[in-house]
Amino acid sequence: MTDFTFWSPTYFAFGRGAEARTGELVRRFGGRKALLHYGGGSAVASGLIGRIKASLAEAGVEFVELGGVKPNPRSSLIDEGVRLALAEGVDFLLAVGGGSVIDSAKGIAIGAANGGEWRRFYVGREVKVRPAIPAALPVGVVLTIAAAGSEASTNSVVNLEPENLKRAAGGDILRPKFAVMNPELTMTLPPFQTACGLADMFAHLCERYFSPTKDVSLTDNLCEAVMKTVVEESARVMADPNDYQARANIMWAGTLAHNDICGAGRVQDWASHGIEHELSALYDCAHGAGLAVVMPAWMTYVHATDDARFARFARNVFGVGIGESDADAALAGIGAFRRWLKSLGLPLTFVELGAREEDIPLLVKTLNLNGNTLGGFRPLAESDVTAIYRLCL
Amino acid sequence: MTDFTFWSPTYFAFGRGAEARTGELVRRFGGRKALLHYGGGSAVASGLIGRIKASLAEAGVEFVELGGVKPNPRSSLIDEGVRLALAEGVDFLLAVGGGSVIDSAKGIAIGAANGGEWRRFYVGREVKVRPAIPAALPVGVVLTIAAAGSEASTNSVVNLEPENLKRAAGGDILRPKFAVMNPELTMTLPPFQTACGLADMFAHLCERYFSPTKDVSLTDNLCEAVMKTVVEESARVMADPNDYQARANIMWAGTLAHNDICGAGRVQDWASHGIEHELSALYDCAHGAGLAVVMPAWMTYVHATDDARFARFARNVFGVGIGESDADAALAGIGAFRRWLKSLGLPLTFVELGAREEDIPLLVKTLNLNGNTLGGFRPLAESDVTAIYRLCL
Repeated sequence: MTDFTFWSPTYFAFGRGAEARTGELVRRFGGRKALLHYGGGSAVASGLIGRIKASLAEAGVEFVELGGVKPNPRSSLIDEGVRLALAEGVDFLLAVGGGSVIDSAKGIAIGAANGGEWRRFYVGREVKVRPAIPAALPVGVVLTIAAAGSEASTNSVVNLEPENLKRAAGGDILRPKFAVMNPELTMTLPPFQTACGLADMFAHLCERYFSPTKDVSLTDNLCEAVMKTVVEESARVMADPNDYQARANIMWAGTLAHNDICGAGRVQDWASHGIEHELSALYDCAHGAGLAVVMPAWMTYVHATDDARFARFARNVFGVGIGESDADAALAGIGAFRRWLKSLGLPLTFVELGAREEDIPLLVKTLNLNGNTLGGFRPLAESDVTAIYRLCL
Repeated sequence: MTDFTFWSPTYFAFGRGAEARTGELVRRFGGRKALLHYGGGSAVASGLIGRIKASLAEAGVEFVELGGVKPNPRSSLIDEGVRLALAEGVDFLLAVGGGSVIDSAKGIAIGAANGGEWRRFYVGREVKVRPAIPAALPVGVVLTIAAAGSEASTNSVVNLEPENLKRAAGGDILRPKFAVMNPELTMTLPPFQTACGLADMFAHLCERYFSPTKDVSLTDNLCEAVMKTVVEESARVMADPNDYQARANIMWAGTLAHNDICGAGRVQDWASHGIEHELSALYDCAHGAGLAVVMPAWMTYVHATDDARFARFARNVFGVGIGESDADAALAGIGAFRRWLKSLGLPLTFVELGAREEDIPLLVKTLNLNGNTLGGFRPLAESDVTAIYRLCL
């Protein structure tokens, strides 16, 4: 086990109708005038935004609003949000949506607290020491998609225009103050988006589970517990999108997959996220779909580095490879993982994703390794990344 | 799954030498003048208190000190601490020790912030609605015993004199601001105290795991993950008290067993804690030792209420009862639990604990059920509690 710090101060209000508490929670965490930030029309059409406005008004919280966040959130909207927040004297960012809306709100929160400056805090995965973020407005979340875990995470990932680069900022200061989590709000998600969310949260666990650090039995067991839950509940939720209990278990799993309770005390990997971000930046595909293509390819490429770890994954998460050699079990586990992703209706190849073989050199170039390596489980050079992209074909 | 709120804002600094950060953390969480609270001479003799004083001085934090906390912490010392804190204008409570020291510090933190009033917030387990605590000074912890989980919990349990009643206060306001956790500090614990700590943290998981709430698969899987870790690592730590990795996994398990991450979304039980507290109040025995006597007796009395749950416990935590009927597996699990406690050198009976059969009516009387029931898994009346005490004989 490595030394670690862990701080997950987010207040979670979980359950049916929890969004009615939004105004009270904004006030509790110091907000008097909020920027209400959301995505497309569904949150408005469903009446959710209206309920939240009523809750803010009841709590005496003023607000201005900025909708229109797209998946792979764009820097231009963050710029607009920062201008609005500064002009209006906003003191709180309220994100209503999934990871893209939350990450966009985090970007605005940085800009509004640093005289408009936010972009320089967003860097690539290859940068080992992120620029420290000196200040950020408090962020609160009403979550509508179980996936990214940004409602409790230290991170924000956005698409920098005009270069179209997906880059991340990070720091404890970006942990949301509260997250309102009503599983009912996720019931109207299309199956593909539900599946993308499942792949995303599972990937967040894998990025932590596949580690060179030994003797972290508690964190290992926790990781497997959340992974098993995601796999078990995924079948229920795909069969019945209105299964409240399955939605609830998955929603909470998405949070615990990424608030770093499953990463405490270990070197983490994160190569697959780096490799995937270039795909969703270039093709504007769903992050979860990109991960479904990249993760098994990454596993196939790196498993021999520690077949015992992959064998444990196979046996404890998917119940395969029992009684087999570690090397065979490792392959059985990767196969089971692929079949699970397929069962969710997710793509497994470049073609299914809309990605092109001839873009691989460009993808590797924009990853911008600059002679550094990527990933903590097995450090990858550019040639390794190229090989992994080719395994996605 | 029931609706829930979850808030665990404690900052954890975990690893070798982490106590060097104490002064910095007191300042970070607003302390300028701390009451340094600890137990017996071992923390002084080991040099730990000296290192912490140096860290406070380096950070420019003033302090006064109050040692002498005993296991089952006494109300008279809390009274003394409150007087000292008020007289000295203390703005922060720094607890260096295990659960008793932390719980004593929490009591002082309440009293110092409420004009000396703290005792009325401490009530019995049978009280369904605890008195709300309007204010408390911030508490920080340097943990030296992996057991009670008070370093991240909402609770404080103390011994009210002169009646000798063990009573609890609770509320999010009692969550410590930070916990410094260096596993090396636990290496000098005598084996019996290490074992008591293991029983205590395992009991905290059982109190949450044995629940009438269905369909909480994530929290169930998390509970089992921590339980399994405690059992696995216990053998290593009893064999070699200086095994850093085992100490580290156990120390972190003790925190996660009681910060309520393993209780989210369910009705909890807590009958065994109520039944045990009367034992440690009357006989001044170690809480963990009392739990080792009470828990298996409680299990034996209640398992038929939900044999399927006890069978799952048997199979997933102890690996017994596989292929057997649920009723048989339940008994096999309770047997395995008993054998595990015995292997740690813990008592299993009243005689081993120094408790007496003729005191059972007094124990039931001081539990003070007043016609209420105790416990969420199977609500227990006074006659049930009497029967459980008799099963401890």
